[in-house]
Amino acid sequence: MNKDIIQKVRDQSPLIHHLTNQVVMNFTANGLLSFGGTPIMAKAEEEAKDMASIADGILLNIGTITAQELPAMITAGKTANEKGIPVVLDPVGVAATPFRTSVVKEILNTVQPTVIKGNAGEIAHLVEIPWETKGVESIGDGNSVEIALKAAETYQTTAVVTGETDVICSENEYLSNNSGHPILEKITGAGCLLGSILTACLTTNEPIEQQVLTAVEFYGLVAEYAADYSEVSGPGTFLPHFIDALSFEVDKLEKLN
Amino acid sequence: MNKDIIQKVRDQSPLIHHLTNQVVMNFTANGLLSFGGTPIMAKAEEEAKDMASIADGILLNIGTITAQELPAMITAGKTANEKGIPVVLDPVGVAATPFRTSVVKEILNTVQPTVIKGNAGEIAHLVEIPWETKGVESIGDGNSVEIALKAAETYQTTAVVTGETDVICSENEYLSNNSGHPILEKITGAGCLLGSILTACLTTNEPIEQQVLTAVEFYGLVAEYAADYSEVSGPGTFLPHFIDALSFEVDKLEKLN
Amino acid sequence: MNKDIIQKVRDQSPLIHHLTNQVVMNFTANGLLSFGGTPIMAKAEEEAKDMASIADGILLNIGTITAQELPAMITAGKTANEKGIPVVLDPVGVAATPFRTSVVKEILNTVQPTVIKGNAGEIAHLVEIPWETKGVESIGDGNSVEIALKAAETYQTTAVVTGETDVICSENEYLSNNSGHPILEKITGAGCLLGSILTACLTTNEPIEQQVLTAVEFYGLVAEYAADYSEVSGPGTFLPHFIDALSFEVDKLEKLN
Repeated sequence: MNKDIIQKVRDQSPLIHHLTNQVVMNFTANGLLSFGGTPIMAKAEEEAKDMASIADGILLNIGTITAQELPAMITAGKTANEKGIPVVLDPVGVAATPFRTSVVKEILNTVQPTVIKGNAGEIAHLVEIPWETKGVESIGDGNSVEIALKAAETYQTTAVVTGETDVICSENEYLSNNSGHPILEKITGAGCLLGSILTACLTTNEPIEQQVLTAVEFYGLVAEYAADYSEVSGPGTFLPHFIDALSFEVDKLEKLN
Repeated sequence: MNKDIIQKVRDQSPLIHHLTNQVVMNFTANGLLSFGGTPIMAKAEEEAKDMASIADGILLNIGTITAQELPAMITAGKTANEKGIPVVLDPVGVAATPFRTSVVKEILNTVQPTVIKGNAGEIAHLVEIPWETKGVESIGDGNSVEIALKAAETYQTTAVVTGETDVICSENEYLSNNSGHPILEKITGAGCLLGSILTACLTTNEPIEQQVLTAVEFYGLVAEYAADYSEVSGPGTFLPHFIDALSFEVDKLEKLN
Repeated sequence: MNKDIIQKVRDQSPLIHHLTNQVVMNFTANGLLSFGGTPIMAKAEEEAKDMASIADGILLNIGTITAQELPAMITAGKTANEKGIPVVLDPVGVAATPFRTSVVKEILNTVQPTVIKGNAGEIAHLVEIPWETKGVESIGDGNSVEIALKAAETYQTTAVVTGETDVICSENEYLSNNSGHPILEKITGAGCLLGSILTACLTTNEPIEQQVLTAVEFYGLVAEYAADYSEVSGPGTFLPHFIDALSFEVDKLEKLN
């Protein structure tokens, strides 16, 4: 982990414009605020270009997207590309329906994402690798690497495949991360908030692989730290500690281990 | 309570597709995840049929509905009827405006709900029984039974009238439940999350009256258990414990009493 | 602080109709419920007039507004004006984009707000006083008073400029409040929930300056009280205590100081 990246986010408090799903808006905003970033969430196409113009980074998350909401996402993403600010695409549930597949294809045809992040089933679907989407568990790390490499290559991007082991691929190199906690699977939007934290880290002036690795490693460490509180008895009591721990120094979080 | 129903939900982790209101999406998703189900929330009409096709149960909750969102609800409900999976209708605030009344009538004209759940004022409105909707308290259990029976008969469904005593009617028989805690009236979406837990219980292969009774009895027991923590000083500190307790074994919850 | 206002809200449990942003709906509903009011949140233009007709107060918050959602806001606001019930306008991020500016101007051209509340940057923008909107900190109290006075005069309303010192102006007099806690800046929707608490206080039959001052003073006191719990280690653990403390007696909250 590159602690300078975490510190830079906190020093600069980057403005991250979220076009994200309705389930996780509150959780994402509170998580990013605690981490040190500044969230904006706006949906109107009329202001998509203006909001993207004042932002330091853009998160596109299709979790509850409708046809009507797509143009604002595309406008925000294109504006980010023109300005040279990072764009993260989180293709939530892209394999579930043809509508989601077509939405993501349309975004990818017009916007160049800095990072695409998703679970193995989602990213596999984007690169047409067969993947068992029934069942929660990831089948194997070998496949995640294949999927991430193919996504990085196909979309000329950095691909992040989350799972028990997170895999990060950029062209022909890859990194992996093992921090994290199974309780994250029992809270809604754990992956969505990671997308926001990741976007914030991408606004720092550091090598992209370091930015992405730091974001996923830090996020997993925060989950481990929060889950370790003796008063945590499930996902409900985990959440407040998780939000808090996103604001903690890396040294404090690491002392646990 | 039929504990097998709770266990089956946890073993099968049914996929519940929610077309629900924006106020409670996060709370509902976290509550169902903790309980043992798998939530999906999608709104686009374009994918309503596809989402319903992969789901094990559907929840239709009109809390913040707009005219534009209605077709997706109807498509999802009709698909569920064709597939033979359960559909729960929660007609939130149906008595408040003519728009809500017309929305619910349109749903009921095209979708056969497995269960209709609501408070006495909502269900009374659906069966044109006069009901005092000003004031929070339910006037009497006698009326709730009359309302539930008439709703079950009119809509050929199982009707659940929630209140201090919950009444469950299916044709000419009825059951009642007294578990629960007044603090549920001080948190938003308590009834909405019950709709989600109920839908999950309906996906098990058990008699419907048992499924419904188990859902409401379990839910009330969870509230009693969570409210009993010494550190709970109001609805804010109740919520994390309530979410946690939805994941607990029935035996653990019952030890309190 | 006029404690009678707090008590009257709790005795009457006013119905506050919210047309507010998607980020804060759950938090706002839980906060107002805990405080003692009754929230409704509906978005459909078809029922805007009917909902406003049964409400005791209206909150218009443009946080995630789209062009499509504007007519319902205007209808609700106009209905409130006709009925003589209070309307609070929270022009969230109005300075950020021309779209937001035009939305707020359209509301102000058709609806007479009882109170306009916002931070210094938002209210300054409404009265065309230059204001540094980059950066989180307010520059000075002197300016806040000038901004609030000009807004009160321009829009014939009571203006509330929130900040380290909150300034309340009605025509040519002004009041200020210093209760509050910096942790409110680290949770999303702190200002939005204040708008809801404020609307509830406006439904009591007391002088408007007292209603507004009581709302902001009480809200800040609640934040101070909740932040003081030894187990609060950040915004995540603050939130449950903050929601709880909104339900406490003023005497209990004041004992802290």
